[in-house]
Amino acid sequence: MSERVVICECFARDGLQHEPGFVPTAQKVALVERFAELGFSRVEATSYSNPKVVPQFSDASEVLAVLKRRPGVYYKATCANLKAVERALADRDAGIGVNEISLLVSATESHSQRNLKSSRAEQWARITEMARAASGKFRLIGVVSVAFGCPFEGAVDPGVVMADVRRFAELGVAHVALGDTTGHGDPRSIAALFGRVVADLREVTPIAHLHDTRGTGLANCVAALDAGVRHFDSSFGGVGGHPAQVKYGGGYTGNVCTEDLVAMFEAMGVDTGLDLDRLIDVARLCEETLGRQLFGKVTRTGLGLAAETAHA
Amino acid sequence: MSERVVICECFARDGLQHEPGFVPTAQKVALVERFAELGFSRVEATSYSNPKVVPQFSDASEVLAVLKRRPGVYYKATCANLKAVERALADRDAGIGVNEISLLVSATESHSQRNLKSSRAEQWARITEMARAASGKFRLIGVVSVAFGCPFEGAVDPGVVMADVRRFAELGVAHVALGDTTGHGDPRSIAALFGRVVADLREVTPIAHLHDTRGTGLANCVAALDAGVRHFDSSFGGVGGHPAQVKYGGGYTGNVCTEDLVAMFEAMGVDTGLDLDRLIDVARLCEETLGRQLFGKVTRTGLGLAAETAHA
Repeated sequence: MSERVVICECFARDGLQHEPGFVPTAQKVALVERFAELGFSRVEATSYSNPKVVPQFSDASEVLAVLKRRPGVYYKATCANLKAVERALADRDAGIGVNEISLLVSATESHSQRNLKSSRAEQWARITEMARAASGKFRLIGVVSVAFGCPFEGAVDPGVVMADVRRFAELGVAHVALGDTTGHGDPRSIAALFGRVVADLREVTPIAHLHDTRGTGLANCVAALDAGVRHFDSSFGGVGGHPAQVKYGGGYTGNVCTEDLVAMFEAMGVDTGLDLDRLIDVARLCEETLGRQLFGKVTRTGLGLAAETAHA
Repeated sequence: MSERVVICECFARDGLQHEPGFVPTAQKVALVERFAELGFSRVEATSYSNPKVVPQFSDASEVLAVLKRRPGVYYKATCANLKAVERALADRDAGIGVNEISLLVSATESHSQRNLKSSRAEQWARITEMARAASGKFRLIGVVSVAFGCPFEGAVDPGVVMADVRRFAELGVAHVALGDTTGHGDPRSIAALFGRVVADLREVTPIAHLHDTRGTGLANCVAALDAGVRHFDSSFGGVGGHPAQVKYGGGYTGNVCTEDLVAMFEAMGVDTGLDLDRLIDVARLCEETLGRQLFGKVTRTGLGLAAETAHA
């Protein structure tokens, strides 16, 4: 099995989703263009969220209208409902569309109600419509949120997640992300569930969308890699993610940090196709954009021996 | 192989070593006692460093003079040279000694010169004397620093580290820590080297002393665990470690964070013998002691599903 991985840079969507300050459209565009220049072949560009609920992405179409695209790069927009897909289709008809959209389902009823304002059954009915409307127009990415544990319900039955992945596959959605939305996964639960997808659903390309809520983000990525996963989502500076609804008043629930993930994978001999030194510059740019120090460790300490270390 | 692990709490030594402010003796004592109460069966208590070089541990004997000991717990003092061992022996003769000391060697000449002010050959000559003087008086822990990479020399030959471990074993030092002093290890280099120790040096109990410099601390602990390691060093709040001498102006080089490590291991079904909820309280106490927020993630976000998650 090849050790080439595909990392999707999520800063401009999952990263910004809960940022209180609006990042100006031109800055978003410049960042997304910069990410693609770095060699990311998948970049989250924006979200067709309800602007009243997520004002950060009220400029979704404005971003896409001016974004310079690189050939071969997938630019993703998140779609929570049919209205979002319709906006994606309208932008596509106007010649400014993305080439990849994601369709979301939550693995638990409680999370579905709070995040998507609908039951799982209602959301699956929507997804069926959304997939039908979008089929052939975009590459479709299925996303199963809280796949490894739910802040409201606790443990999640892996069988439910497997059924969700299968359902996506039956709708022709060949790429499916399992989201560890609030970082409940551990290396063994991550390996077990992705291992089942890899073994039992060969028509699906699994994506590890992991959060570093409890510090296990990189360890969980290694577990997913060892289970055969080759697609990973991460965010510069480790920002973003779902607001925590856990004990101790919530807290930090960011994505896996891109620059730390890439440094680790490259040190392991796993080919990310990305230039580490240039990554650090962009990590700094992301810090400037948000006006604060983010969570990346290699941004502070350097890349170490990645280039020199040989692995037998 | 049993999945019971032994974690050595390093806050009071490796954690405090580079703290600029002197932590009052009574606070150090209270912390070390608290660590042992939590269930740590190994606790770094102090260091017999030269007080002129490391003023933080100028109170080594004062700490030990009043420290209440729990039966079955190993209290460790770090010994860099023969003078340190002589101080450890004097305290022992006075009835206030520790029951475990560590003997240090660096895997590279450059690090040996800067950290121990001697060549590797000189340090090995000292260690031979130190081990002879200490034999039968303390449990001895060998430590090989920069075992996975050196900030001055880059890559480190695993053969050199293996020879050092063997040399410790020949001196009767049955526990040997491999130190990833500046966090250059990655899950594969960690697994490879510990795997060699486990396979080739069965008389040695290996200890993973890993630093989180590049965010890979927990991932590297999992790699060590999977390679058969059952002894780990960590520090509350992830503080401590060797000052960085790397590109980008140095930076964060802390130990693996105890509370995050324990939360992950327990979630994985690995028995640490520690009570997670009580750990969080002590993590907070460590933050109060240093007067700042430390690096633990579960301290902020809660423990997740550790108790509820079942692993088949």
